[in-house]
Amino acid sequence: MTSTSDRRTKMPDADLIARFAAIVGADHAITDAAEQAPHLREWRDLYVGRTPLIVKPKTTEEVARLLALANAEGIGVVAQGGNTGLVGGQIPRESGHEIVLSLTRMRRIRSVDAAGGTMTVEAGLTLAEAQVAARTAGRLFPLSLASEGSATIGGTLATNAGGVAVLAYGTARALVSGLEVVLADGRVWDGLRALKKDNTGYDLRDLFVGSEGTLGIITAATLRLFPQPEERATAFVALPSLDELLPFFQLAEAQAGGALTVFEFMSGELLSFVTRHIPGTRKPLAGEVPWYVLLEISSAAGRASPLLDELLVKAAEGGLISDAAVATSLNQAAELWRLREAASEAQKGEGGSIKHDVSVPVGRIPEFLVKAAAVVQRVCPGARPVPFGHFGDGNVHYNVSQPPPMARDAFLALWEEMARAVHDVVVSLGGSISAEHGIGQLKREELVRVKSAVEIELMQSIKGALDPKGILNPGKLLS
Amino acid sequence: MTSTSDRRTKMPDADLIARFAAIVGADHAITDAAEQAPHLREWRDLYVGRTPLIVKPKTTEEVARLLALANAEGIGVVAQGGNTGLVGGQIPRESGHEIVLSLTRMRRIRSVDAAGGTMTVEAGLTLAEAQVAARTAGRLFPLSLASEGSATIGGTLATNAGGVAVLAYGTARALVSGLEVVLADGRVWDGLRALKKDNTGYDLRDLFVGSEGTLGIITAATLRLFPQPEERATAFVALPSLDELLPFFQLAEAQAGGALTVFEFMSGELLSFVTRHIPGTRKPLAGEVPWYVLLEISSAAGRASPLLDELLVKAAEGGLISDAAVATSLNQAAELWRLREAASEAQKGEGGSIKHDVSVPVGRIPEFLVKAAAVVQRVCPGARPVPFGHFGDGNVHYNVSQPPPMARDAFLALWEEMARAVHDVVVSLGGSISAEHGIGQLKREELVRVKSAVEIELMQSIKGALDPKGILNPGKLLS
Repeated sequence: MTSTSDRRTKMPDADLIARFAAIVGADHAITDAAEQAPHLREWRDLYVGRTPLIVKPKTTEEVARLLALANAEGIGVVAQGGNTGLVGGQIPRESGHEIVLSLTRMRRIRSVDAAGGTMTVEAGLTLAEAQVAARTAGRLFPLSLASEGSATIGGTLATNAGGVAVLAYGTARALVSGLEVVLADGRVWDGLRALKKDNTGYDLRDLFVGSEGTLGIITAATLRLFPQPEERATAFVALPSLDELLPFFQLAEAQAGGALTVFEFMSGELLSFVTRHIPGTRKPLAGEVPWYVLLEISSAAGRASPLLDELLVKAAEGGLISDAAVATSLNQAAELWRLREAASEAQKGEGGSIKHDVSVPVGRIPEFLVKAAAVVQRVCPGARPVPFGHFGDGNVHYNVSQPPPMARDAFLALWEEMARAVHDVVVSLGGSISAEHGIGQLKREELVRVKSAVEIELMQSIKGALDPKGILNPGKLLS
Repeated sequence: MTSTSDRRTKMPDADLIARFAAIVGADHAITDAAEQAPHLREWRDLYVGRTPLIVKPKTTEEVARLLALANAEGIGVVAQGGNTGLVGGQIPRESGHEIVLSLTRMRRIRSVDAAGGTMTVEAGLTLAEAQVAARTAGRLFPLSLASEGSATIGGTLATNAGGVAVLAYGTARALVSGLEVVLADGRVWDGLRALKKDNTGYDLRDLFVGSEGTLGIITAATLRLFPQPEERATAFVALPSLDELLPFFQLAEAQAGGALTVFEFMSGELLSFVTRHIPGTRKPLAGEVPWYVLLEISSAAGRASPLLDELLVKAAEGGLISDAAVATSLNQAAELWRLREAASEAQKGEGGSIKHDVSVPVGRIPEFLVKAAAVVQRVCPGARPVPFGHFGDGNVHYNVSQPPPMARDAFLALWEEMARAVHDVVVSLGGSISAEHGIGQLKREELVRVKSAVEIELMQSIKGALDPKGILNPGKLLS
């Protein structure tokens, strides 16, 4: 497909490529196809892009010079962090016009203020490295994702990543107090503030967070750090039916308040996929269970376990849960976590899987699950929905495994039809078609279908104001 | 002073005034000076404005028609809620060109989803009414301010208000999941989402929150509701010196986590103002105390008091506190709260007061207090700083009472000089010159002095994109 933005940016010629390369130095300007390859392939192989040049700047000033040149010459620029995105946002398009700006060499920890609870780091630092830096300072940086070993701070902020700690600490947006951003024309906005309150004008920070590299390139961030919980109590809980999910969550929230740090749910069928296909896993509880919840309470020493026990007793008395396995060691807790973390991987053993990353108001998750199951059966009789996700955030990974006898390709050919049907249910419940993965290339057309014209126009106005030549990540998020 | 925006909007003639009035009906179009008066005077008397017309629409559709007409004709529009703002943002300018759009008739509660923890209300509902509606549904809407009986949801969102519950629940920004906004040209953006996670494009919601009516007019909001704490434990604590403030806060944060809902500080001298001037108050603790902290822990039943006791014992053992009064009844808790809430009022008894609403990184508050005291003495020897505020948010109400023998007016004449000196200290520590009150008219010029040119340009780009004719709250926030 050719979008407007394809026609607005042009292919850089050899002279221009040399000028870009000169800014970062020859060692950090990659034109060799083999060296480029890992940057051009999205890890699920959904997107493979082309580029004349990958540049790896070391400083904000180099990023500024690269963008000033790109803007002057009308060259598209795709910012890339750890290349772990799931919607093709970090991959240049097949036209091969755009240069890739990899931030992986910008990985300095500029400062840590343990007492004040903030840390300023560069965009290319990985999440795992940021977690370690916080821990070393006696603090917690809570953002945690499956891909945290590769995903970078810049990438997770540009996509407003979620993960398993959102319930207590919020998405990436809530974990950043300030940003340094290079604008389309190379100006640098120094918004690196370590403040909890600042009412001095428009919220520029939150405009760049989640903008997928289309409004500016994040080069550094001031992150919020939290007290490290001294104790964690973990349980894997069985529910009698879908009806108990919401009341059990509400009870947990009321009992534990901010100490309720994890409330993940998964279907019984999905757990059976895990124990069937993932070596070393086993069912933590006996019997046929339709729904499970992985629960974690974090607190100062001596408080989490009694709080968890009390909650489980109350829930059992109220008939909200039918059974529970409480971890009595870190090893046992890790085993329970493994059941949840292997959910995606386990589905591979059951053939093709069509995936939806959606959210609805928390109170409507049960209704969503019932309605979505119905439309899935309409699109593909016998398909097996195996939902899981971040219940407390209203975020369902509504994955659907193929009917066992069906051909994998025939099932995957239904992706678009099924996605539309599921998204229509989501929209009818006031939900979002992308809870945490973003839009990128994957959902760009679906975005226009589900959003109001006014909202798309508003976004386009802002894009036009901040990137008038359309050089920043062309063809992503917006058309 | 005449700004660009003064010249861009024009005075509506009689015909145009009649057309505006026809949209809302004659009963809700106010031209009478006496009826207009309460809307045109800021409550500290810092600003008195003029207007040819105040309109009070009842519906979003009426707001849309008013703005479409204003935009077509180039008439400035000042949105107003409860008229409790402290920086003149809600008052039309003295030129008398702008019409006032009061949202006080739009006060419907559109829906309450207690299970899902959200509530959709119109902009003119007061904070106090919103709190009651939440409580009636068995939930907590935590935003709480001194002016909550008059302040409206729309106004508090347009200014991103703070208050005493920010530590645990965040500013107004964190308490809203969706907005309905009428844009400058009368288009309506329906962004009323009840979602915790939604990564589908730019964060428009946070752009409108805190934009002080300069980018659009908020007509309704979906608010986040929380579990009601079953128990609150309150203490008024004496600290040996400034050195213990930060470590005591950190201990409280580590011990109580999300259950630490209030951590307000005030100087010993300020408390003596309170007990001297506010009838019925008395010192809660004996002896000379340099700093006090009002502390509150909220939790499920039976948990807050033990948590508070444990914290106070640890703090006393560590030498972080010298004494503490723990409330043993709701009445006693109210008495302790009264000491903190009367802080502003008490200063009136000590003559003129110059006020600063600033924030710095939490870890730098002690350093700020030392440096600010020094510059205050330089500007006015003998002046008495009586700081107080939301320590856990880094938000200091750095108020300065006059030297007792000085003439009140002579002291107040130093306002600008002192504000500049204090703000320079704030900026040198990476702080904000407006933590929670906003910019409005009061700090518009100071904003340009302390912000980078890039940041001002970014804001102007966004303003130009969303309000190209400059009709929304002209001359506020930006020049």
